[in-house]
Amino acid sequence: MSGRRHAECGTPEPGAWADTLDRVTFPVVGMVGGGQLARMTHEAGIPLGIRFKLLSDTPQDSAAQVAGEVVVGDYRDLETLRAFARGCDVITFDHEHVPTEHLRALEADGIPVRPGPDALVHAQDKGVMRARLTEIGAPCPRHRLVADPADVTAFAAEGDGFPVVLKTVRGGYDGKGVWVVRSEADAAEPFRAGVPVLAEEMVPFRRELAANIVRSPHGQAVAYPVVESRQVDGVCDTVIAPAPGLSEELSGQAQELALRIADELGVVGHLAVELFETEDGRVLVNELAMRPHNSGHWTMDGAVTSQFANHVRAVLDLPLGDPRPRAPWTVMCNVLGGDYPDMYAAYLHCMARDPQLKIHMYGKDVKPGRKVGHVNTYGDDLDAVLERARHAAGYLRGTITE
Amino acid sequence: MSGRRHAECGTPEPGAWADTLDRVTFPVVGMVGGGQLARMTHEAGIPLGIRFKLLSDTPQDSAAQVAGEVVVGDYRDLETLRAFARGCDVITFDHEHVPTEHLRALEADGIPVRPGPDALVHAQDKGVMRARLTEIGAPCPRHRLVADPADVTAFAAEGDGFPVVLKTVRGGYDGKGVWVVRSEADAAEPFRAGVPVLAEEMVPFRRELAANIVRSPHGQAVAYPVVESRQVDGVCDTVIAPAPGLSEELSGQAQELALRIADELGVVGHLAVELFETEDGRVLVNELAMRPHNSGHWTMDGAVTSQFANHVRAVLDLPLGDPRPRAPWTVMCNVLGGDYPDMYAAYLHCMARDPQLKIHMYGKDVKPGRKVGHVNTYGDDLDAVLERARHAAGYLRGTITE
Repeated sequence: MSGRRHAECGTPEPGAWADTLDRVTFPVVGMVGGGQLARMTHEAGIPLGIRFKLLSDTPQDSAAQVAGEVVVGDYRDLETLRAFARGCDVITFDHEHVPTEHLRALEADGIPVRPGPDALVHAQDKGVMRARLTEIGAPCPRHRLVADPADVTAFAAEGDGFPVVLKTVRGGYDGKGVWVVRSEADAAEPFRAGVPVLAEEMVPFRRELAANIVRSPHGQAVAYPVVESRQVDGVCDTVIAPAPGLSEELSGQAQELALRIADELGVVGHLAVELFETEDGRVLVNELAMRPHNSGHWTMDGAVTSQFANHVRAVLDLPLGDPRPRAPWTVMCNVLGGDYPDMYAAYLHCMARDPQLKIHMYGKDVKPGRKVGHVNTYGDDLDAVLERARHAAGYLRGTITE
Repeated sequence: MSGRRHAECGTPEPGAWADTLDRVTFPVVGMVGGGQLARMTHEAGIPLGIRFKLLSDTPQDSAAQVAGEVVVGDYRDLETLRAFARGCDVITFDHEHVPTEHLRALEADGIPVRPGPDALVHAQDKGVMRARLTEIGAPCPRHRLVADPADVTAFAAEGDGFPVVLKTVRGGYDGKGVWVVRSEADAAEPFRAGVPVLAEEMVPFRRELAANIVRSPHGQAVAYPVVESRQVDGVCDTVIAPAPGLSEELSGQAQELALRIADELGVVGHLAVELFETEDGRVLVNELAMRPHNSGHWTMDGAVTSQFANHVRAVLDLPLGDPRPRAPWTVMCNVLGGDYPDMYAAYLHCMARDPQLKIHMYGKDVKPGRKVGHVNTYGDDLDAVLERARHAAGYLRGTITE
């Protein structure tokens, strides 16, 4: 006779199951790239019971430290990619560097690639992106490809003159590959790499925003609240969700714009549309990223469903989760490497000072200026929420010592 | 000249860091046992940037599927444990089955074991637990060790007679190792295993509660809201946080009791105190668990800091996180294996029906009655929150088909 009413909640003896990987019904998501985005995607995938396979450059990469199934290899090598993809139900990405022809080869092998090469090229090549956005009527800064410094002067003369923003069409991030030039003499450097160069007007913007959406293959899409993104030295420093004081009209326009871009370009997964809010109250597209994005890290603690969880659901064509915020304000501050290498010791102060603080570290060596983690705070009072996040990020970095 | 204002939030090229494991400042947490509690502890540890090492019976165990550093070995073998512990800063547990003498040997080797053997024995041996709780004045059902069926009859006669609850002092879980006996003839079976048997009065209880607390080595402790735990067939089925209609007085008593037990027994980490709320409005201790516990799974989505995150913080002696709820009501329902093995296919319905649903699957084969996952729901209206969780758990199990 069993004691039904008296039994406790407990854990079975370990070792009671030994054939778990016989499960055939749960899919395998393969992610290319071992950075922090893959690390946080793995974290978000664990509750879904899926298998997560990682293709990482080294066994020490951020995600490779914490994932269960890691293949170490070079994503630029097609045969490495092919062998990796063979055991996966879908392939997705931590970064945008996989060559388009490799993605097409995987698709030809019958492996779903999400986002697919036809979408992803718009996040890989700023020239292609600008041309396509212009075609679909998405508002962009004035822009065109330029051939040489003299052509930059011509581009400047077509508008309000210098300064002009120059970008190599491929390979830039965090301020690298981007120059603000004030004269033709300044314009020589961007051409040295031999990569095509895009000129853009220097937009007099009020602030930067990001409209983050997630779209699935069957066309379902969810839009996160539009956020304000503040940069320091060309690197994202603070994200505030939602963007303070943003009108419902402009917020709606930005979300609608991101949804339309995703639809027109056939994006699957998370799409970040980085925007300028102009001084005359418009939004212009700055950049696109087709993967989870720094401007969406606040969702890990601030939204019902995080960008990472929704990215996984999207690439698996599962119904998407609620993107709405859980608190009136959420603030994310990046933790950059500083001169003080022992961030763990700083946990004592940060956690004791703020028991609601959410720390997210990436397992990366501390090097000056490198993004090694972020913190999230949330609450009812924006000033207080901002102060808490800034204090923690500064203390971890070592720029605040008390 | 760099384009500071125009730079985007982005990800560096992968492979830019290759020496990550040289980080010496972040600690290594070693967890013994590869079940779902270890799986969810790993998930909670990822954001802290710690290293998580797992000692798992097989490479297919729930946690071993998703953890980065897995040692496959038998925790009952001291040399295996010792070799595993050598690379760890602290050892903690997914289950309570590691022999006490092994834990003492690890401590003698200089490895912190949290909770330590002197505390853990109270979660391993129900006889020791009852004796100690009685000593510190914690309210328990009437109980004593019994020698044979005739002694059970004597125990019954000392109180209100049969029925009597019999428990083997070691090895029980989820209703196993527990019998409700109605006569001396019924009482033979529990003695067959040769394990000491504890007799307890059959408590006429109104419902079961759990008081979950987390305590750190330096004595800081946090108390989660007291929850109601509903069992079906001896297995935890539903947990409601906070326990509906529980008076502030009784809730405070239960929390104070759990904190006092943790302090007296020297518990480090998560302690679950399973309680009976008696018909005359008292609480009596049913069981203790010194690890994250099924009655705390709601905290993953319903509290500021989950039981898993706080367990990790406690064993590392870091300041603890805020245990308060994020929503008025959170409900957890366990997902048990049913006759329908393809739970993944059920995601489509569950996610589409309830975009706020939180699914947590453990990567375990579906076998009838086995806990293979849980779902969490939260919101303002308890009836609606309960219905959503029950529907999802039932649909995943296959007992609800529309």
